[in-house]
Parts: sequence; C-alpha cells; structure tokens
Amino acid sequence: MSRRSYLGDSRGFRSGASSPELLLEESLARIDRREPAVRAFVHLARDRARAEAEQSSQRWRAGQEFSAIDGMAIAIKDIIETADMPTGQGSPMWTDFASRRDAATVQALREAGAIILGKTTTTEFASTEQYAPTTNPHDTTRTPGGSSSGSAAAVGAGMVPVAIGSQVVGSTLRPASYCGCIGFKPTYGALNRGGSYDYLSQSCVGIIGAALDDVWAVARAIADRVGGDPGHAALSGPSSLPAAQAPRRLAWLETDGWKTASPGAIAALEAELAMLRGHGVEIVRRNDDPALDRLEQAISGALDLTWRIMSWEFRWPLASYVRTHPDGVSKAMRGRLADAEKMTPADYDAALARRGEIRSIFHDVAARFDGFLALAATGAAPVGLGYTGDPRMNVPASLLGTPAVSLPLLADQGLPLGLQLIGRPGQDAALMALAHWRWTLP
Amino acid sequence: MSRRSYLGDSRGFRSGASSPELLLEESLARIDRREPAVRAFVHLARDRARAEAEQSSQRWRAGQEFSAIDGMAIAIKDIIETADMPTGQGSPMWTDFASRRDAATVQALREAGAIILGKTTTTEFASTEQYAPTTNPHDTTRTPGGSSSGSAAAVGAGMVPVAIGSQVVGSTLRPASYCGCIGFKPTYGALNRGGSYDYLSQSCVGIIGAALDDVWAVARAIADRVGGDPGHAALSGPSSLPAAQAPRRLAWLETDGWKTASPGAIAALEAELAMLRGHGVEIVRRNDDPALDRLEQAISGALDLTWRIMSWEFRWPLASYVRTHPDGVSKAMRGRLADAEKMTPADYDAALARRGEIRSIFHDVAARFDGFLALAATGAAPVGLGYTGDPRMNVPASLLGTPAVSLPLLADQGLPLGLQLIGRPGQDAALMALAHWRWTLP
Repeated sequence: MSRRSYLGDSRGFRSGASSPELLLEESLARIDRREPAVRAFVHLARDRARAEAEQSSQRWRAGQEFSAIDGMAIAIKDIIETADMPTGQGSPMWTDFASRRDAATVQALREAGAIILGKTTTTEFASTEQYAPTTNPHDTTRTPGGSSSGSAAAVGAGMVPVAIGSQVVGSTLRPASYCGCIGFKPTYGALNRGGSYDYLSQSCVGIIGAALDDVWAVARAIADRVGGDPGHAALSGPSSLPAAQAPRRLAWLETDGWKTASPGAIAALEAELAMLRGHGVEIVRRNDDPALDRLEQAISGALDLTWRIMSWEFRWPLASYVRTHPDGVSKAMRGRLADAEKMTPADYDAALARRGEIRSIFHDVAARFDGFLALAATGAAPVGLGYTGDPRMNVPASLLGTPAVSLPLLADQGLPLGLQLIGRPGQDAALMALAHWRWTLP
Repeated sequence: MSRRSYLGDSRGFRSGASSPELLLEESLARIDRREPAVRAFVHLARDRARAEAEQSSQRWRAGQEFSAIDGMAIAIKDIIETADMPTGQGSPMWTDFASRRDAATVQALREAGAIILGKTTTTEFASTEQYAPTTNPHDTTRTPGGSSSGSAAAVGAGMVPVAIGSQVVGSTLRPASYCGCIGFKPTYGALNRGGSYDYLSQSCVGIIGAALDDVWAVARAIADRVGGDPGHAALSGPSSLPAAQAPRRLAWLETDGWKTASPGAIAALEAELAMLRGHGVEIVRRNDDPALDRLEQAISGALDLTWRIMSWEFRWPLASYVRTHPDGVSKAMRGRLADAEKMTPADYDAALARRGEIRSIFHDVAARFDGFLALAATGAAPVGLGYTGDPRMNVPASLLGTPAVSLPLLADQGLPLGLQLIGRPGQDAALMALAHWRWTLP
C-alpha cells in the first residue's frame, strides 16, 4: 500500500516537477499493463482525459487551479450518469444507455477540475449478480468484491487515485477491503445521489481511494458543489483532511460477520486490538458493556432487515424492467422481485420502523465512545468471480445510515483486509480525524 | 363540472352496458374535438390504448379486472418516464429522450390495468418557463396553469378522467383550479416518485381528476403497488373513497395570496365561509386565534423560502444541462442556476432549518382543527399563455409537506376556481373524508 497521494504530488504542479499530465500518463500506462487481467473499466475516455489533463496542468502552473483535486483522474461506477459515456448499470438491458447528462457527483468533480477517466464495472443494478469479468488486482483468481467492483479494482491496481462507488449494504467498504483500498461511506444523504441509478433508502455515494487526504478532498469537493441529497445536510468539515485525533475509548462491534470470519481475519483483528490497547486506547467489547451488547443484539439480523427494505424498494424498478425486457433481468433479480411482490406497504412500514428502533439504540450508545471498530470484511476476497463476498461486516453502518471508513491495514492469507471505523451520523469529519490518527500510527 | 366518474361508469362493465372500450372512444372523440385548440398532449398512444381497452373490457366482463381502475385512460405529465413514449420534460434539450422504463407511478397504473393514453405538456423541468402552447379548456386565451399544464387541461377538457402531475410549489392544485378539476397533492413522500425527473425535497406526485372517487382510487392503486418514496410510508387508508366526514372546526388560511386575490375570488371565498357556517361549521380566522396568526406569519414568505430551497436543489442538474447543452436551457432557468451558484451548503441548511421550524408551528396548530381551508388560486386563470399564474395559495401546503386537495366548487369571472382543503401529514384519508363531505354538500 503506497502512501503516495494526489494531493501530495500536487505540491510539485506549480513548479512543473510534476503535473496532472504526467500523473495521467502514469495512470494510462498502469491501465495498459494491468487492465487486460483486471478488467475494471467498461469505458475509457483517454483522449478527452489527455486534453483535460493538459488544461489542468496549465491551470496549476498559472496558480489558477479550480480546487485541490484539479486534474485528478477519477473513475466512476457505471450506475452513475455521465454525459459523454453510456451508463449500463451492469445490466445487459442497459448497455450503451445514453443519459444525456452528468450525475451530481460527476458534475461536481468536473467543476472542481477533476478528469472523469472512465466508467467502472458494477454488479447488475449494483446488487448481487456479477456479469462483469473484473478480477481482484491482488489475485486475479479472486473477486474484487461488489457492487463497486471496478472502482475498487481500478484503485487497488493503481490505475486511478480515486474512484466513485456506492453502498447500500456493503458495496464500497467490502470491495475496498478486498482490493486494498480506502473506502468511505458518508452519512446517509451527505453526498448528492442525483443522476445515479441508486435510490434505495440506505444507499449513498461511496469514495474509494489510495490515500486518505485524497478521499476526503474528493468528498468535500462534491459536497461543496452539489450538496447532499435533497432535504439533507451536506457532508461538512474542514476542506483538507481533519487533523488526526487519538481516541480514548473505542467500541468493538462483532456484527453477525464475526461468526463466519476467517481465522486469519480474527487473528488480525485481535492483534489490532492489542496494538491499540498498547497505545492507551480503551477497547470496549459487548461482554464488558450491557448497552453495547444490546446494540449487537439489535444489529443481529441487519442483513435480513436490509434485504426486506431493499426488496420492496426494488419492486419498482424491477417490475418495469421485467415487463418491458423479459429476458433482460437476471434470475437473481427476478427472485428479488418475487420477494417484493409478496410484501405489502404495511410490511415495508414495519421494516422501516424496526430500522428506526435500531438507529435509536445506536444513537443512545454511540455518544459514549469515540468511535466503533470492526473488520471491514469477514476475510480476504473469496476465490472465484461469481460471488462478491459476505457483506455482514458492512451492513450495520449502512442500516444505521452512519459514516464508515475502511483502512487497508490488516491482512488475511497474505491478501488485503480492511479495518473498519464507524462514526456517528453527521460526524463524518470526526470519523475522518480518527481514521487519520490510525492511518498515520507508526 | 360533471359528477360522472369512471368508478361509477364501471358498474356497467360486467353487463356490457358500458365498457373501457366505449369510454376510451369517448375520450378519443373528445380529444379529436378539443385537442387542436387545447394542445394538452405531447404524445398519444391511440393504437396501444385501443388494444389495452379491448383486453380490459374482456377482463371486466369475465369478472377478472385487475383493480377498480382497470381500463381507465390516464394521461402522464411529461417529466415522468414511460417505456413506450419519450420523456421530454418540457425542454428542447430533452425532446424525444427515451428512458427505457416506466416510472413507478406508470408501472403501478399499468399493473392495475389502467391505460396510459399519452404524455401531457409541462413547463420546462416542471418549473416556470412555458414552451408548450397548451391553453385553458374553459377559455383558450388563458393559461391552463403549470407546471402540470397538459394534465389539468386534458382533464378539464374531458379528454381523460384522470391525469398524473406533480407539485413542488403549486403545480397540481393551481392548474386544477384554473381548469376546473380536482387536484390532489398527497403527503410528501406518500407516492413513489421513482423514474420521474422530480427530485426536489418538497415535490410529490399529484393526481388530477374530474371525480373524487377516481382520484382517490388512482392514488391508492399507486401506493399499493409501488409505495411511497424510499424511506417513507405510503399513502394509506380505505381502498375506496373515505366516507364523508363533516368537520366541526376549520381554520381559514389567508396565505400570502390573499393580498393579491381578485375581487371575485375574495367574494367567492367569503360566500363559501358563510355557507359553511350555515352548515354549523366553526370557521376560525387568524384574528380569532393567536396560534393561527402565528402560523400565518410563519408561512408569510413561504414562496421565497421554497425558491431558495429549490434553487439549491436545481443547481445540479441545471449545471450539467448548461455545461453539456449551452443553448438548451431557458434564460429563466439559467438565472435560477446563477442564484444557486451564489449559495453555499450552509445557506441551504439554514433554509431547511427554517422550513423545519415552520413545520413545527403547523404541527402544533393543526391538531386543533379538522382541517384548513384556503383558495386554491388567487383567481381565475390569467389571460395569456406565457405566465402560468400566482402559486402563493399553494406553496404553504408544499412547504409543509402536508396533503392538500382542490375542489372545483368556486368561480371567478365566470371561470373555474378551486376551494383548497389542507390536512395533516400522513392523514391523507382524513383529508379525503373532509373533501368528500364538501364535495357532496347539496
């Protein structure tokens, strides 16, 4: 894991010691070398990117850059609309669909001077079915995870410093963990999802990157320009990465994933906890604290509850897709639709009410800690490309609507594994200060 | 205003005394006669509609209708996606845009057996700029109102029993008032907006119809099949129109519109209040009740606050449209974008906070009344087609996210004028029971 960042490199842009053009050519060379095996992209806009990198380099040399991320090459998950490239949603029925506009995130990134280098693979409708042949850049016999498969693989392979994904269950943090990247899922609603085929009630824009300062700068660049979802406060905080803040007290969340975590993952987390204790951090476990145990009980079954909520929310559009394109939807998603058709609005209301109760329990507990800590995945990426891995470690933060970040600091079977830190809703900057502390711990 | 309803007519479908086919032919004949002057439609699907009406007629004769609205011909505002017709958003840059799917409302209506007869005109992006040449069916020198211009005009001209619109300021109730229709804006979030270019934080699906039982049946048919917006409870209540419920105490809301209401509109409302008092209803005015006066003060300026909120929410997508299609956006909307670009996320948060305060004030006052009553427009439809009229009477219910219905029971200058009834969030069925009582008052 290189600690090199775009923001760090940009210190040489004014003098010409480095430039967006040079960094883009590094990206393109890396793509030439790795993409035949990794297959992270569905579209690449090389010529446009080169033209934009040249303009950005000129802006930096003149001291007239649009933002800290001016000239950064960014890849976009293919559920997010781009005016110059199709948006295929990982679905045969949507391949080559032209949306005529840029999504909110893409518009914001272009305003900030970033270069939209290409579109990355996703599972069908950002759900479970993987048509894309994307591989894990650390072991091409393994899944990159999903649904933000190509975004994590592209960053993990060093093709781009940052890629945009999304998360409704575990679609940003899990692939980030598998591919050795940082993954950041902000508070629900904190980054505008407009123009993304991504409308579920737990879903949010996710940022995947190789360096924490880059990830934060991209999130802030989006929030400043297009805000959060309509009716929601945008991600806020300092414009550059919040200063590292050491925690005094962290809660360890097992989640339902702990029962199926691999031996290597369990050993890695236990070593992490011992190391943190060595730095004077109090680690609270469910056995130590009845309120924390109550939260663990509340989030037990979080995946089933999330699936119930999502199934109803997927009823439309799946019903429309199946009606108009009978062969265009996978068997897995037709099964999701069948589940939804057994539900009533009252069933959905009951699921929302249960989610609300769990959020209250979290709210009551969370104030007593400087953050929560968990594995970001149950282990290294599984072998094979059909199954994108177990999301049980990620679903609690998604269900809670609370910010979470995965740091590629652990390992399992010699492959990357993420340490997940979870904050409180609206406190994204505080979570990032905690992550910054851990990221820079010697 | 005919009191004939599709649900009433459907009582003859089993025997063959009437049929969806016969009613569709009536609709098509009315369209042939009125559409050259009214110009409500941007697309019409005559052949498909006829084929579907034949199938529906067979279902009814066999006692196998899909729902109470099986076979009803419905027109759809052209910001709402339809798989078989383009979705142009009233914008030159979107004309003939094919979205490849049906919006949630359209999918639900088709599942219920309804016939999607065509797409109706809207102002650009459902905002202020009117490119469409739609006229008011009661006086073709006048506006039908907007933004659901064609939907209200089509119903007002008797071309369809029900049309779907939307409302973020006054886009359903105002055109309904001008065109002599019923307009219903449910609680914010209660009908799924998925697949509609309609993502503002006060916007909702609106139902425009000629008969109250039809309007309610359509709203319920949508809610049962696709629910509300993700994360929101769906519209609930009985499947057929709630029984009439006489109020004891109604609050009269002047709103900012009262100051500019026409003499005829003022006289019509005062006669209405006198009539209601004659039926034993206590009418409370702001001068009678300090809490109600406080609410009137709180909603004073509601239009400015709504525009501030909307401007920021329109920043994306307008910024993307202007960047990719420099000549494709009206001067008015470029001005809106310029307003948005002067705002920060913090300005937006402040506007949301103010909206939250006003909602609290409403919440505290509303429990003391059986409903609120106001004009649905400041007078009859203005002469001319460029300006869609003053929305000040409608913006409070939009800002509050609370349900409202306009009944075509008043008149100004010999033209239609709506009586607006406003309920409490989530209490759509109770509002409909009140409207039912007023609608059937002798």
